[in-house]
Amino acid sequence: MTDGTSDETTEEQLDAVLAAAAAAAPQWAASDPATRRRLLEALAVALEGAVDELVALAQEETALSTARLSGEVRRTAYQLRFAADVVADGGYLDAVRDEPSQDAGLPAPRPDLRRVLLPRGPALVFEAGNFPFAFGLLGTDTAAGLAAGCPVVVKVHPGHPRTSLRQAELARGALDAAGFPAGLLGSVVGGEPGVRALRDPRVRVATFTGSLRGGLALQQVAQERAEPIPFYGELGSVNPVVVTAAAAERRTEEVAKGLLDSVSGSGGQLCTKPGLVLVPAGPLPDLLARLVAERAPERMLTPDGRDRFREELAERRSLPGVEVLGAGRPEAADDPSAQQVLLLTTSAERAAEQLEQLAQEVFGPAAVVVAYDDAAALEELVPRLPGSLTGTVQYDPEDPEDVARAARVAELLAARVGRVVFNGWPTGVSVALAMHHGGPPPASTDDTTTSVGGASLRRFLRPVVFQGAPELALPPALRGAPA
Amino acid sequence: MTDGTSDETTEEQLDAVLAAAAAAAPQWAASDPATRRRLLEALAVALEGAVDELVALAQEETALSTARLSGEVRRTAYQLRFAADVVADGGYLDAVRDEPSQDAGLPAPRPDLRRVLLPRGPALVFEAGNFPFAFGLLGTDTAAGLAAGCPVVVKVHPGHPRTSLRQAELARGALDAAGFPAGLLGSVVGGEPGVRALRDPRVRVATFTGSLRGGLALQQVAQERAEPIPFYGELGSVNPVVVTAAAAERRTEEVAKGLLDSVSGSGGQLCTKPGLVLVPAGPLPDLLARLVAERAPERMLTPDGRDRFREELAERRSLPGVEVLGAGRPEAADDPSAQQVLLLTTSAERAAEQLEQLAQEVFGPAAVVVAYDDAAALEELVPRLPGSLTGTVQYDPEDPEDVARAARVAELLAARVGRVVFNGWPTGVSVALAMHHGGPPPASTDDTTTSVGGASLRRFLRPVVFQGAPELALPPALRGAPA
Repeated sequence: MTDGTSDETTEEQLDAVLAAAAAAAPQWAASDPATRRRLLEALAVALEGAVDELVALAQEETALSTARLSGEVRRTAYQLRFAADVVADGGYLDAVRDEPSQDAGLPAPRPDLRRVLLPRGPALVFEAGNFPFAFGLLGTDTAAGLAAGCPVVVKVHPGHPRTSLRQAELARGALDAAGFPAGLLGSVVGGEPGVRALRDPRVRVATFTGSLRGGLALQQVAQERAEPIPFYGELGSVNPVVVTAAAAERRTEEVAKGLLDSVSGSGGQLCTKPGLVLVPAGPLPDLLARLVAERAPERMLTPDGRDRFREELAERRSLPGVEVLGAGRPEAADDPSAQQVLLLTTSAERAAEQLEQLAQEVFGPAAVVVAYDDAAALEELVPRLPGSLTGTVQYDPEDPEDVARAARVAELLAARVGRVVFNGWPTGVSVALAMHHGGPPPASTDDTTTSVGGASLRRFLRPVVFQGAPELALPPALRGAPA
Repeated sequence: MTDGTSDETTEEQLDAVLAAAAAAAPQWAASDPATRRRLLEALAVALEGAVDELVALAQEETALSTARLSGEVRRTAYQLRFAADVVADGGYLDAVRDEPSQDAGLPAPRPDLRRVLLPRGPALVFEAGNFPFAFGLLGTDTAAGLAAGCPVVVKVHPGHPRTSLRQAELARGALDAAGFPAGLLGSVVGGEPGVRALRDPRVRVATFTGSLRGGLALQQVAQERAEPIPFYGELGSVNPVVVTAAAAERRTEEVAKGLLDSVSGSGGQLCTKPGLVLVPAGPLPDLLARLVAERAPERMLTPDGRDRFREELAERRSLPGVEVLGAGRPEAADDPSAQQVLLLTTSAERAAEQLEQLAQEVFGPAAVVVAYDDAAALEELVPRLPGSLTGTVQYDPEDPEDVARAARVAELLAARVGRVVFNGWPTGVSVALAMHHGGPPPASTDDTTTSVGGASLRRFLRPVVFQGAPELALPPALRGAPA
């Protein structure tokens, strides 16, 4: 911990945090589901007991709305309890047994084999800038790491340090009161201390949600250690949307409004914001152009973020054949965080020529609308899209032919994304057993893992098989006679 | 394919192989379990129908024994059928569903979510040199890749090209006869064409079994692609063995003989060969020194491999405090593949000082015996060992105190290895549901995956969740009402 101040963590402080995490690791790895629930519940209660204070702090630091932030705190508390449910169920351990066998059909006699997932040890969690709670100090990776049996050290995000460190204080109070070692949840402030922690042999796994550049640099640090460790980064996602001709014709207004809400919500600063939208040329682009003009400016997390966004957007606008489809109401000149909503557009032919540049994430309230004349363009464009967290298809469910078309588009999207959304918008990530919040690079560094959902605990676990082990040497989940 | 010759694959040939694999991918991904079994069975039958011919070829190329090679062919056929059983069971798809819910306890309404693992597409499999069949052209990765729904292209190992290409011919015959597209199983010859294949966007996942240096270089190629792909390498493993004082005292001869068999079997060229053995000072090292002197020379796969082995061994022998504990019968001077069995030894103190050098894999019939005076040395040494595929504890099961000691050693080993073996020897890898044949680096590039066992199909799969999808757009495993 860092005593609630946002001063950069010193080398001595970091050493103490990591030593405490390492010391707490064996006992926590051996803890039972009821103990883990007790810890996670205590953290959820601590969060809920300070909603107003935390939301006020986060608003000062991030310019996100009260509704968004208080909803986020609720979700974060839910995530902590959800992780406890996953542990209680036990299926997350993926325990499998083979009984010994001398069967003549086997290539060799089979010993008693029992496999289970074991906790890796101390985890380093890099907070996200755009979710001070849900992907913050007590966010989804922290919940999953603790639930999986790993102490967690959180690298505080510079975009909302006070919000994070107040959560750290509340967490420390809750741990103390419930008799848990403080080493179960530590924090570190500062970029350089964060990298030092990532290099430390006591850290056994790391997770990150943030920019492509930052994430790839940290991944390299994790790989260049004497013993590389898993680094799970969620880095950038253009989240393609495909609108079929039938949907554009019969659900025009619904699709247009849904898209604009999804592009501009939370200032477009969501990892699942649609960035590239393939729509039939015609009435839908025209309606989008009209509707976007009514949109109020969005507030971005920080002035720096707004400047980066504008630079990236200017690059897209300078590409040949790319035009402004429409812009929202202009922002006040004296507000350094405000940003008007923007839609760019180009043709399918132009998009095919410069897809690499057009299909990079732009983090803010903007999207590129690609107008196609013929559905055949989808067969060319979709397979060439970069990996994304989500891909969406908007179709007409009442039209059997269009359902078949949507199924084909979904098949193409499924090869490029982690979640295929039908007639919904991807800016909702359910905390649920089947959720997968990951995708091919650049969306994730490892597309088999997820930061949200029932499988999120697996990031912090590793399979080990015990061969011919005496009962005493087996982890609890493997003891006893086979089921 | 390469027409059964071991000439390096040309650029045109490679393009044809990859184009055929890519063309076969969608249909194969959609194939049902019965179809996959039909393919895998056809390959198993083709192998079994040519055992004598294949064993003779492999003997010419590798100097492995008839018994070892014919056993390996049996195991390879078993692996193909085992993979079909895993597919038939269906659990490997890890299908999970959440029903839609408006429950007030949720942070937001939950849509219909259905997650499943989908095939990645064409897989590139780098054959191992030391297993011309079990990790060869029709080996475990090929079986798992095909079973998982991916076409497979095999990079032939230069140590046994004719054995591999004959298997490719047999496989092609079997595919043709059963009416499967040839693109389901291709081959490529040559280092440079292998790297070119790894860079090709049509290849979606790669697996490798071989040297640390070669594997890391290929991993980098996979990561530097425009879209990085998973590269699953099994690279090197020192496979520590810990012998308790009670086992050394009461099971002296059994342990000594078992160890020597394990160190020298297959010329010590197995990825699970014990390379570092922690034994109590006293009668066991003395017995090992006597028994090793009776061992006949082993034949190594190739003269080059023997030379590399001798160089690596010479480095270890030159370390301060490292001595020869004993040597097997000397090899004939005119046999460039023969190698006497060797045991080196040093003290626990010396080992602690230079563990990094001593605990690197030496691929051949040798091991380093570390003599400890006090079991406390294990607490220092074991946690510092490099990641390994296996860790073994030899103990006395009749002695309750020793069982507790073994449990503690196993706990330390479990943090460093993928498989903990009790009173067995690690040179047997069962093809079984619970098997895990992976471990922390350098043993594996990704310690969550396995090249052998029920979970081996996962290397070739990726989770995708379908949100609110119409029935028609769902993969078969996700259709219908929730169970």
